[in-house]
Amino acid sequence: MADKLQGQSLTYENPPHIVGQGSIVGPEEAEGPMGNSFDLVCEDVKCGEKTWEKGEKKMVSDVIDYTLGSSSISPDDIDFIIAGDLLDQLITASFVSRDYDIPFLGVFGACSTIIEALNLGSMKMDGGFADCVLCFASSNYQTAERQFRTPIEYGDQYTSNKQWTVTGSGAYLLGWLGGQVWITHSTIGKVIDLGVKDTQDLGSAMAPAAADTILQHFMDLNRGPQDYDLILTGDLGRIGKKNLNTLLNEKNIELGDKLQDCGAMIFSDENKYGAGGSGCAASATLVASHIIPEIIAGNLNRVLVVGTGALFSPLTVLQNESIPSIAHAVVIEKIPEGG
Amino acid sequence: MADKLQGQSLTYENPPHIVGQGSIVGPEEAEGPMGNSFDLVCEDVKCGEKTWEKGEKKMVSDVIDYTLGSSSISPDDIDFIIAGDLLDQLITASFVSRDYDIPFLGVFGACSTIIEALNLGSMKMDGGFADCVLCFASSNYQTAERQFRTPIEYGDQYTSNKQWTVTGSGAYLLGWLGGQVWITHSTIGKVIDLGVKDTQDLGSAMAPAAADTILQHFMDLNRGPQDYDLILTGDLGRIGKKNLNTLLNEKNIELGDKLQDCGAMIFSDENKYGAGGSGCAASATLVASHIIPEIIAGNLNRVLVVGTGALFSPLTVLQNESIPSIAHAVVIEKIPEGG
Repeated sequence: MADKLQGQSLTYENPPHIVGQGSIVGPEEAEGPMGNSFDLVCEDVKCGEKTWEKGEKKMVSDVIDYTLGSSSISPDDIDFIIAGDLLDQLITASFVSRDYDIPFLGVFGACSTIIEALNLGSMKMDGGFADCVLCFASSNYQTAERQFRTPIEYGDQYTSNKQWTVTGSGAYLLGWLGGQVWITHSTIGKVIDLGVKDTQDLGSAMAPAAADTILQHFMDLNRGPQDYDLILTGDLGRIGKKNLNTLLNEKNIELGDKLQDCGAMIFSDENKYGAGGSGCAASATLVASHIIPEIIAGNLNRVLVVGTGALFSPLTVLQNESIPSIAHAVVIEKIPEGG
Repeated sequence: MADKLQGQSLTYENPPHIVGQGSIVGPEEAEGPMGNSFDLVCEDVKCGEKTWEKGEKKMVSDVIDYTLGSSSISPDDIDFIIAGDLLDQLITASFVSRDYDIPFLGVFGACSTIIEALNLGSMKMDGGFADCVLCFASSNYQTAERQFRTPIEYGDQYTSNKQWTVTGSGAYLLGWLGGQVWITHSTIGKVIDLGVKDTQDLGSAMAPAAADTILQHFMDLNRGPQDYDLILTGDLGRIGKKNLNTLLNEKNIELGDKLQDCGAMIFSDENKYGAGGSGCAASATLVASHIIPEIIAGNLNRVLVVGTGALFSPLTVLQNESIPSIAHAVVIEKIPEGG
């Protein structure tokens, strides 16, 4: 019966189109190497709100408005929202969804959340359960720091392997009409834990999950690096990316320049940002602002986006647990003529 | 294209069978009115582990083992795990899934989580994306109290409208072969917030979401109370259930004894447990231990299970936000002969 499943990978019979997408970031991301690509920039990281959390919510609302405004979709057309974020109880996604008269499904894959949402959204579309799905995810440096690490006011010193949470949000509209790219496949990851305990080095904790999902994807679909113009991980950062390359090389997979990481691309200044960016917003913003436009422009044709997430909590760290990780993937490619 | 969607409700062409289910609870639940129905009882609420969180994880592992053991399914047969819990970053679900070589999707709908998981699992099955899905959810009085309210050692006084988190977990295996009940429909809820701010009274916060989903379900499928033998809410408790009845009566819907609530059923002693039980485990345990057996025994035929969740966090309470809520529903019914 499961004729669309091979191993851990799905092949969509009717691939959903991405009919609209948008990105918003904070001022630091806007000053980084990818700064020119983002659709919206929030000059004030609180977005004029009283708290970081309300600011994160405002960013998401703004990027949804932008995404709807630049598409032919109205909120009434949307069958489901599938969304999540890093905050306890997914409060950004829930509180944003409160403002819409649309059924809501909360999902959590840590920083892989947007890819989990796009996976489930594609399944809803292809399975005959929806004609339009809104997916979004967000993260915010300040809300994440105070929840996961130490209050910013403590002046915690950054180590070179630490990553900096990207402030921003990406929104995606799945539909049937319009758009120039579609989602043709998904691969759902397993929880992988090789025993890394250092929360300053999440890239190393997540690299094995990314390797597992990429290798599984290739095996399931009988594909290899030659089938992709780009393999883009979410937020491994520079150290995690190096570890991923090592793990893939052990399996005789050489990705070379075809492997890029959203977090490493967004923050390049190692003195300030350590190993690069992290957070749901790393992949959520960059795929919308840079990758999809590159596909539309004809500079890329088929991209494997591998969202990566560290599934720990501050409590599990205190209880001396290691950091389980996960990676979910989607294939985004140009819709061929007549597609 | 979305031929299985009417409004917010899905009708499955090939309804997945529930081919195995199991429940585990703590000692207090075992002493309550439903105590005899649960499959497993953990006499020590830490399940022999060092922390409440590790104890919650152990309960879930035990109930998965039980559920697999009482079915013809082995872990190798399972295509996906869809699961969640109340703890920050869904650590119970993630850490349990680490022990399995199975792709994992984390979902969060607060106390409606098991119903969200069954919704998405049914979609995976009917859409051609899976042949076997494991869904589970859990909650634990101690882990929830210290995360959401005040440490137990403070001796916080219970008010009569407060609810008591159910310690337990329920696991469900969706498949095609075997089982005597199936999931024929789902209704995905919207985020509803009528401004309730009292975290001692989550039943009142969630009742409007339950009413909205029940009314929507009836409208979408052109059904009414006469089409169900039981409409079972997750964890409204006695006060929320009363509020739900009032809201439905305003729409000329009289459910009478057909409306029951898992939380109210599990804990009846008002002096100790206030308005009744709450938590993911309320519906997750009772549907597995009591409702499905009642359907199999022929005492019930078709049941609408309405999972209810309060989507707040301790931080949103401190920031003076009200409590957004959600309710997701599934229809569980006896598989007719030849089904």
